[in-house]
Amino acid sequence: MRTGQERQQITLEAVALHAHVSRQTISNALNAPHRLAPDTLARAKRSIDTLGYRPNQAARSLRTLSSQLIGFRIEPDRDGINGAVLDRFLHALCRAAKFEDYHLLLFTASDDASEIDGYDELLRGRAVDAFVLSSTHQGDERTRWLTERSLPFVTFGRPWGETDPQHAWVDVDGAAGTEAAVEHLIRRGHRRIAFIGWPPGSGVGDDRHTGWRRAVLANGLPQQGLAVRGEDGVESGRALAAKLLDLVQPPSGLVCASDSLALGALRAVADRGLVAGRDTAVVGFDDTPVAMAVAPGLTSIRQPVEDAASAIVRLLAERLSGVRVPPAGELIVPTLIERGSS
Amino acid sequence: MRTGQERQQITLEAVALHAHVSRQTISNALNAPHRLAPDTLARAKRSIDTLGYRPNQAARSLRTLSSQLIGFRIEPDRDGINGAVLDRFLHALCRAAKFEDYHLLLFTASDDASEIDGYDELLRGRAVDAFVLSSTHQGDERTRWLTERSLPFVTFGRPWGETDPQHAWVDVDGAAGTEAAVEHLIRRGHRRIAFIGWPPGSGVGDDRHTGWRRAVLANGLPQQGLAVRGEDGVESGRALAAKLLDLVQPPSGLVCASDSLALGALRAVADRGLVAGRDTAVVGFDDTPVAMAVAPGLTSIRQPVEDAASAIVRLLAERLSGVRVPPAGELIVPTLIERGSS
Repeated sequence: MRTGQERQQITLEAVALHAHVSRQTISNALNAPHRLAPDTLARAKRSIDTLGYRPNQAARSLRTLSSQLIGFRIEPDRDGINGAVLDRFLHALCRAAKFEDYHLLLFTASDDASEIDGYDELLRGRAVDAFVLSSTHQGDERTRWLTERSLPFVTFGRPWGETDPQHAWVDVDGAAGTEAAVEHLIRRGHRRIAFIGWPPGSGVGDDRHTGWRRAVLANGLPQQGLAVRGEDGVESGRALAAKLLDLVQPPSGLVCASDSLALGALRAVADRGLVAGRDTAVVGFDDTPVAMAVAPGLTSIRQPVEDAASAIVRLLAERLSGVRVPPAGELIVPTLIERGSS
Repeated sequence: MRTGQERQQITLEAVALHAHVSRQTISNALNAPHRLAPDTLARAKRSIDTLGYRPNQAARSLRTLSSQLIGFRIEPDRDGINGAVLDRFLHALCRAAKFEDYHLLLFTASDDASEIDGYDELLRGRAVDAFVLSSTHQGDERTRWLTERSLPFVTFGRPWGETDPQHAWVDVDGAAGTEAAVEHLIRRGHRRIAFIGWPPGSGVGDDRHTGWRRAVLANGLPQQGLAVRGEDGVESGRALAAKLLDLVQPPSGLVCASDSLALGALRAVADRGLVAGRDTAVVGFDDTPVAMAVAPGLTSIRQPVEDAASAIVRLLAERLSGVRVPPAGELIVPTLIERGSS
């Protein structure tokens, strides 16, 4: 690991003095360039280059106990289908961290409380500099615990239910995803477009429901009785889709909150002798390997986990630079991947 | 992290003296109990309990720079289907490491040479105690590099092509897997059973080919012209299976070296108006989420990655205990998961 000794005399302050700007401006030039006017950004960058300032190395020399490790808990794999998106995120996070000379320290925990025990243990051992958390949820004790201790962390997932978030986060805009799915189906001539999702109360699930509802209302389409919700999984998706397909006026398009549910929906379509993509359109969420594998190919909403990981590492680097930065959040818009099912 | 100071006076030697056995016997009692006679094991265990010996803590107190970290490189996800088995392994390794108070340190590398650079960097920063490597192959420079430096590591994957392995490894017996697939198809009445695999030269691929060949010959079944090999992937599997199905005497069973190839084979079967599971049986390898998802369900060989991870951590703990142990290897037998495709 590089020690940065050769450059440790160059501080953020020195660069700010050289450029005749504030320290915050230099920090912004490095971490949030969009916040600066073009000429200020150009001046800041010239001074950074002239002095050969390396933010990470300088920050490191200030923090002698820096381990260059980011702690991340991996969850036990769930049904094997939906877990794929978090595994993709893990790969992306590992790659993004490398650019900032960080490595990931992985640990497992069975629930939030034992995840907090894990943080505590790692911090007492000075084993990590910061944390990345995934799967945030309402009343998340983990983020409260870390915030109370002023520990640097960024969450992949919004601070659900918090009106005044105290930490940095990056999330994928699930509502924009299901909205895009509805609009895609409208372009394909569908008018009765249903939603198959998780029970109300989960942030991610409600967000995906909201996008469907917003798009359906905005386009003057029927929504009454067209949202069915139940637990995640293939069999659950099959049963929920069956209910919709057995309506007197069944929907011709099914927007699902996960690929598992969508896979079940495809089975329900086939059960009734209908052909997915011709008689009934199905759209999933997360673009897992299964979406590509099943016939006729499942249209699905893909989370740009690479962009999310880069944004997270950038926010983390900002927080580890020693400069005080306010809480910040970033919503990333997902992409619709079209396949045969729609 | 526990420091182990409270117990640092209790050494392996003290336990060996107390039990009137050798140090190696105590080490075996802890790490390889099956190597000991029942009464010796009982005596060793009594002394371990009486003295309250904790092998990890004791080893740790001898190694003041112990980081309790195991380095592991994750590969970029490949086609998204076959990468699933390595992600499953990663989860299992993380869980198994926890039992020995170890955490995983993840890093990425684009090839073997940059993976070695990664080891070097981590070791210079004293960031890790040991490594776990996956995807071993012929002429593996990584294992040579680590062996030359006497660094503790265990590979998930055999030392392919080495007659006198110098390190510890755990692998899944791929040949036993394809053999089980052939025998399963024989029980289902198949006589012409083909193999679809990767080009000759890869250890894993040749191993899976060997199992098919062994089972076919042992049962006096035809093998001439029934092994086709090409690159991995769905389209490749479809083309290779098409060749077999277009033979004058086509096979009725297809044993594939991966779920990707098997998925392609299922498509080739459908392309010809045949029904998988009724007209042609297809078996995949790795039991990825896709195997469960595709209709009619893909029979596949499942790697017991949890067992592999436990064995790896056990071998690693043995190597980190401070006791000299010879190279060792363990082959784990995979399981056939039956589904509709066969």
